[in-house]
Amino acid sequence: MMRTTKLMRIAAGLATLGLGSAAIVPAPAVAQSQHLEIIHHPNYDKSVFMPFSPAIKIKSGKLLWLAGGTALPVYHDHPHKREQILKYLANDLEGQVRQTMDGIMETLKAAGGSPRDVVHVFIFRARPRMGDIGKASAVVNSYFAPYNHKPATTNMAVLELGEPEQLVEIQVVAVVD
Amino acid sequence: MMRTTKLMRIAAGLATLGLGSAAIVPAPAVAQSQHLEIIHHPNYDKSVFMPFSPAIKIKSGKLLWLAGGTALPVYHDHPHKREQILKYLANDLEGQVRQTMDGIMETLKAAGGSPRDVVHVFIFRARPRMGDIGKASAVVNSYFAPYNHKPATTNMAVLELGEPEQLVEIQVVAVVD
Amino acid sequence: MMRTTKLMRIAAGLATLGLGSAAIVPAPAVAQSQHLEIIHHPNYDKSVFMPFSPAIKIKSGKLLWLAGGTALPVYHDHPHKREQILKYLANDLEGQVRQTMDGIMETLKAAGGSPRDVVHVFIFRARPRMGDIGKASAVVNSYFAPYNHKPATTNMAVLELGEPEQLVEIQVVAVVD
Repeated sequence: MMRTTKLMRIAAGLATLGLGSAAIVPAPAVAQSQHLEIIHHPNYDKSVFMPFSPAIKIKSGKLLWLAGGTALPVYHDHPHKREQILKYLANDLEGQVRQTMDGIMETLKAAGGSPRDVVHVFIFRARPRMGDIGKASAVVNSYFAPYNHKPATTNMAVLELGEPEQLVEIQVVAVVD
Repeated sequence: MMRTTKLMRIAAGLATLGLGSAAIVPAPAVAQSQHLEIIHHPNYDKSVFMPFSPAIKIKSGKLLWLAGGTALPVYHDHPHKREQILKYLANDLEGQVRQTMDGIMETLKAAGGSPRDVVHVFIFRARPRMGDIGKASAVVNSYFAPYNHKPATTNMAVLELGEPEQLVEIQVVAVVD
Repeated sequence: MMRTTKLMRIAAGLATLGLGSAAIVPAPAVAQSQHLEIIHHPNYDKSVFMPFSPAIKIKSGKLLWLAGGTALPVYHDHPHKREQILKYLANDLEGQVRQTMDGIMETLKAAGGSPRDVVHVFIFRARPRMGDIGKASAVVNSYFAPYNHKPATTNMAVLELGEPEQLVEIQVVAVVD
């Protein structure tokens, strides 16, 4: 989250260097996807910290639909094996989110995509405790922050995921060349 | 819901004015999105009242993916502020659905879209009571009825949304120019 | 599941007939959708049985968004009628999944699509018991196995669906001509 804030400050700094001249458009700190247009309301109050975009328009490219990812390796036996569950599904939400996002990043890469190409993220949590939504979001957002990108996000707790030990499932749609 | 029924009666009336001539195709009461094709089964029994379309095909335009909307203003502080939760998340499902849909309409408009351009609506409810599914749907549908439009819809109750007080989260995909 | 395994064996058999010659590329047992590209990781260990694809890229065609399907007939009265609930929503997960998938297949067909064109499947279960995820998946997969197709899938249990008796809701995105 720190990283996003810093990048935003850099971007704001670059904007200030434009000295009010409409002709000088500062480039963003990190190039964003050419396929996506981030939608903001005309009355967007930038002093409000928003960890996600209200909407994203897909201008070009091809849709990539990922299966719901879990903290298990992307390729894992079915039905699930007890020893894999014990090995990968520790009772640690942030750890499970990290493992899940690592698998999603591998899948994105296999399709020629990057975190900056992610359109929407569904975060489904199980066994929720107060504050979990923020903890899960912070880890998810850390994967996009280096690209100064904020996907549209929907985050909730459901009754149960694939196994009683599974604390999170993340489902992503992206756009690739 | 009244509005839909009335519009359907008007549309049926216009159809009747076609007097059986295939050459005279009456325009719908309100123009529907040119980007979307509503899919119905060949054996569709129109006497059954359907508040949603079985499927929608996207013929043209660009996809717009919205983040899950809530009864909080679209732009709200993160982490959530206790006073905002108390102000906006009253224990009133229909009120929360209305506030949520108002925010979604603003976001749609910011992207150049309209209610008629909505493809799919996920309605996620929390703290469900018997009858809530119909109450939430009626409010959601009232936003599309003036356009004689019925998005494909998926409606369920989940364990918990972003805050214990949050009763609904709505996630929309639309198509825009 | 048996069917998938058999088709995979046939495909493997055809591959063997290629006799190691790169010039002879055996056609898959059943032609897959020309619109979709199945994404696999470069290190994909094929000895691991995967009932779904990690991701699917949409290369061409038009998106088709289905409403969440249930074991009720696709066209059913709203609000739901008690006698329809009793008739169609028996306490039998696999039966409800089959009825739901039958309705989805009808809708796909009405749009000119086929099971091979399905991109992503959300399986939302209610009243979960241990093992239900596998039971629901096996029935869902049996609809795609004849086409040797494995959609990207996300599977979870939610708190409640449209009626207390409803055990499953399935939401599909596909691509059609």
